[in-house]
Amino acid sequence: MSDSSSEIAALHNQGRLLISCPDRPGIVKGVSQFLFEQGANIVRSDQHTTDPEGGHFFMRIEFERKDLDQQFTALKESFRQTAETLDMVWQMSRSSHKKRLAIFVSKEDHCLNDLLWRWRVGELNAEIAMVVSNHLDLKPWVTPMGIPFYHVPCTRETRLEAEKTHLKLLAEGEVDTVILARYMQIIPSTMVERYQNRIINIHHSFLPAFVGANPYKQAYERGVKIIGATAHYVTEELDQGPIIEQNVERVDHRCHVDDLRRIGRDVERLVLARAVQWHLNDEVLVHGNKTVVFR
Amino acid sequence: MSDSSSEIAALHNQGRLLISCPDRPGIVKGVSQFLFEQGANIVRSDQHTTDPEGGHFFMRIEFERKDLDQQFTALKESFRQTAETLDMVWQMSRSSHKKRLAIFVSKEDHCLNDLLWRWRVGELNAEIAMVVSNHLDLKPWVTPMGIPFYHVPCTRETRLEAEKTHLKLLAEGEVDTVILARYMQIIPSTMVERYQNRIINIHHSFLPAFVGANPYKQAYERGVKIIGATAHYVTEELDQGPIIEQNVERVDHRCHVDDLRRIGRDVERLVLARAVQWHLNDEVLVHGNKTVVFR
Amino acid sequence: MSDSSSEIAALHNQGRLLISCPDRPGIVKGVSQFLFEQGANIVRSDQHTTDPEGGHFFMRIEFERKDLDQQFTALKESFRQTAETLDMVWQMSRSSHKKRLAIFVSKEDHCLNDLLWRWRVGELNAEIAMVVSNHLDLKPWVTPMGIPFYHVPCTRETRLEAEKTHLKLLAEGEVDTVILARYMQIIPSTMVERYQNRIINIHHSFLPAFVGANPYKQAYERGVKIIGATAHYVTEELDQGPIIEQNVERVDHRCHVDDLRRIGRDVERLVLARAVQWHLNDEVLVHGNKTVVFR
Amino acid sequence: MSDSSSEIAALHNQGRLLISCPDRPGIVKGVSQFLFEQGANIVRSDQHTTDPEGGHFFMRIEFERKDLDQQFTALKESFRQTAETLDMVWQMSRSSHKKRLAIFVSKEDHCLNDLLWRWRVGELNAEIAMVVSNHLDLKPWVTPMGIPFYHVPCTRETRLEAEKTHLKLLAEGEVDTVILARYMQIIPSTMVERYQNRIINIHHSFLPAFVGANPYKQAYERGVKIIGATAHYVTEELDQGPIIEQNVERVDHRCHVDDLRRIGRDVERLVLARAVQWHLNDEVLVHGNKTVVFR
Repeated sequence: MSDSSSEIAALHNQGRLLISCPDRPGIVKGVSQFLFEQGANIVRSDQHTTDPEGGHFFMRIEFERKDLDQQFTALKESFRQTAETLDMVWQMSRSSHKKRLAIFVSKEDHCLNDLLWRWRVGELNAEIAMVVSNHLDLKPWVTPMGIPFYHVPCTRETRLEAEKTHLKLLAEGEVDTVILARYMQIIPSTMVERYQNRIINIHHSFLPAFVGANPYKQAYERGVKIIGATAHYVTEELDQGPIIEQNVERVDHRCHVDDLRRIGRDVERLVLARAVQWHLNDEVLVHGNKTVVFR
Repeated sequence: MSDSSSEIAALHNQGRLLISCPDRPGIVKGVSQFLFEQGANIVRSDQHTTDPEGGHFFMRIEFERKDLDQQFTALKESFRQTAETLDMVWQMSRSSHKKRLAIFVSKEDHCLNDLLWRWRVGELNAEIAMVVSNHLDLKPWVTPMGIPFYHVPCTRETRLEAEKTHLKLLAEGEVDTVILARYMQIIPSTMVERYQNRIINIHHSFLPAFVGANPYKQAYERGVKIIGATAHYVTEELDQGPIIEQNVERVDHRCHVDDLRRIGRDVERLVLARAVQWHLNDEVLVHGNKTVVFR
Repeated sequence: MSDSSSEIAALHNQGRLLISCPDRPGIVKGVSQFLFEQGANIVRSDQHTTDPEGGHFFMRIEFERKDLDQQFTALKESFRQTAETLDMVWQMSRSSHKKRLAIFVSKEDHCLNDLLWRWRVGELNAEIAMVVSNHLDLKPWVTPMGIPFYHVPCTRETRLEAEKTHLKLLAEGEVDTVILARYMQIIPSTMVERYQNRIINIHHSFLPAFVGANPYKQAYERGVKIIGATAHYVTEELDQGPIIEQNVERVDHRCHVDDLRRIGRDVERLVLARAVQWHLNDEVLVHGNKTVVFR
Repeated sequence: MSDSSSEIAALHNQGRLLISCPDRPGIVKGVSQFLFEQGANIVRSDQHTTDPEGGHFFMRIEFERKDLDQQFTALKESFRQTAETLDMVWQMSRSSHKKRLAIFVSKEDHCLNDLLWRWRVGELNAEIAMVVSNHLDLKPWVTPMGIPFYHVPCTRETRLEAEKTHLKLLAEGEVDTVILARYMQIIPSTMVERYQNRIINIHHSFLPAFVGANPYKQAYERGVKIIGATAHYVTEELDQGPIIEQNVERVDHRCHVDDLRRIGRDVERLVLARAVQWHLNDEVLVHGNKTVVFR
């Protein structure tokens, strides 16, 4: 949150190590010994084993290492050996690295406005590379902030062309992560595959309840007493991807569909913001169709 | 909550009027004029109109009337005329009247224990006429409290006989309301019809998510970040009746199915207790497949 | 929420009646009879009695009356008589009337940004007459929206002058309600008196815990597991006015003061927004140092 | 939660290691290397550093070691050396060890009933050595469960004698932890010192708001919109000890003091139960006047 120069210096020497592997004795020992020998101090460490017997092991470590920027490539190279011994899937990154985001929107602006505000005040450790929309409505809120806004219409006829344009924009913009901030179009499988576990959608219901279109209307008709929102990674199946975060709000019989929409907007934007923040901080690991969130 | 004698006296002079009718001008005027003329003072009043244009109108009034017990029959008779003029479905009761409950259970006792405790400390304005179970396990917690415990086995073979026994017990016990406090058997349609909007079930999921058997296992497999419980009136369709109350609790990747069950127990018993309390206080009105809860 | 022309027409024929008086028989009858005779249909009605015996009575009614705009003055005049008979403090307004707001801010923009966004999408039934600040930092976010921004420095030396300027601005801007959206200065008693129960402050703690300066630091030092925010009407005593709304969020041992500030921002802006919305809809009545909120 | 014999076997081979020391490089490496060399596999590990620069380090490890019961004393002895090198305060225990509890109550039974139920269904990993009360009211709910109930009156005159009796009972009962489950008497400093960070109290407010007597009445008079409860370790200063857990529930203007009490009871017993469970599982570490909770 703070941006004093000493904190930035600290961040520049901070790295993250994410590990996933079959559980077995000696993993923590191996990793902590490696870091110790490399002069890196563990600042934060989280781990999870799915099952004490024959389960899967997940670990996230934040460490500090003097002159990390200069040593980073060497450090990664050295770790490769440890990782191979222990049969790990792993990823090492510098905490100072900012992921590049593309935010996809349609006409509703509550999630976009919220993300842009958080980015502006320093809550999102990211570069916003672009905003992409199938409508022009939200352009006036984007361009004054110096963020490119791309209008890519997406109708039944133009779908294939839109898909090509999207992939080209994302590639050229060197985008890491795509945020669907109430983008009301299906994401084609090409993009889902290319950005696996890197496309975050906000669905305006408490999944798995009210999959698909118009969840607030569905909620109204079922007469639920609580509504919710769900942020999840996008997979091929609609609204079925790994859930990152959910939250809810109480409603009652006086609420019409429009009230549910209004109340829901506040839930949606907070749920999406949290999921995005955790993703940007490499705090989310995917395991099958579930997430491990080290927050 | 308090049971001082002055409060009990007050309750003896307190009545409730529930009204449901097509909305039209003059309803509040008509009802409040009637009560004023009958010497009754409105203590609490709640109303709801489903839609300002051509909607349905619901009202619940608590009133005080000197010597209500003696005047109650006459008061009801007088209201009949007002009610007919305004095409109302209505119900008048004395607040001091205690509904007679039957609690159905199987083997899990968290909801039963909670309801018995609330009854004992005076939180439930009811008589517990009986506890009915398809197992004997929970008998030791019931009979010491002086409450009859009926063991009615219910297998594929004995289902029809069990149904007959149930209906006989309920009739003989003059039961108003049936609470399914984790009773793991389907309620036959004969009973559903006879006790329409008077059978309350607790379902251990946030409906409409995870309908049917083993919702915590379903929740675990979907990887949700929040679990819930739902109290609803029982209708012919499984887990589809009007929802009275729901609540939720946060879970995370470290929770196994057994953890969800443990955490869920606390949600279930509180949700059921609230729904039962509201029902006993005539605070729940059913409208189609939804409830209006005046709490 | 919707802005279809039929809804606007409906709103133009909609009025609100707020009543406060010692409880006694016949109030509801009197008021509902008056409205019926005046051709007004009750759309929503809420009431509260502080105590069944000799308590105080509060009522809020939303009604519809054909040609309300033309009939409004006459309707108010007619009600005066009913009101006098029943010793009422009362207020009648048209639902279409928009209150004029002044938003006071210092340097933090999370509440301001949230209120401006809600205003823009139609969630606030108000005109924003001006934003007033003791700093220039937030001007760039205000003036592009066509809202006047007044910079009124407020130091120990200039305090008296600032007070005069404030009162002049508010008077000239015909301001109804002042929102202190993280305005870090004491409000002088002249302004408190002039805008009694019309100045809403957001305090960044769960009052009455952590009154005064730097509540997040206080919360951090006490080691609480939940933080909160409180919206209240401003009175002479600091952070002691009638509470309109509060909410909370869970924190843990990993949260530093900066984390509490970040998490708290989301609580603050939602709590303030709700309080402002309820106030704008005349849903808040003050009784002594408490509020009755008919939401 | 489950009590299948294979799980019990697993628990018998499971140990916990709690560590607290000044932060410095090599701690995780040292500890994990020790466990690896001793044939112990880390099942769960949590750690916390108060500050990346010169802070304090906390760690809790659950490990599995074949034949732990037989090896436990040797394992502890071996760790002593590692611990000394790293200047640690530490504690090693077997997960199968059940702490012995004394529950102190007065007249209100909601917390006691809840704890006894959880103990009965296996949610509390503890032996309940005794229930102690200054009244006889709750005896009938305790003795049928085979738990000794000691009636120790505690008035101004008998206070010193009561204190002696308490300490004697606790010593003879080999009590580890004292739970004040709505015990309405001050705990003398002798007991506080002897059972440092081992006496858990439930206070019926959201501390630090409403310290001392009658917090619900205080809450009612302040007009708060949310009430809460706080479980904390008891220290010399009333209601000022390290907070373990807090939770809240929404209330509104319709709630009288008795309603706050009733709603509060549900919050209190859940908050206390969680704090007790975490304490029993050695998941709570005290740091100054705060807690680190590894749940």
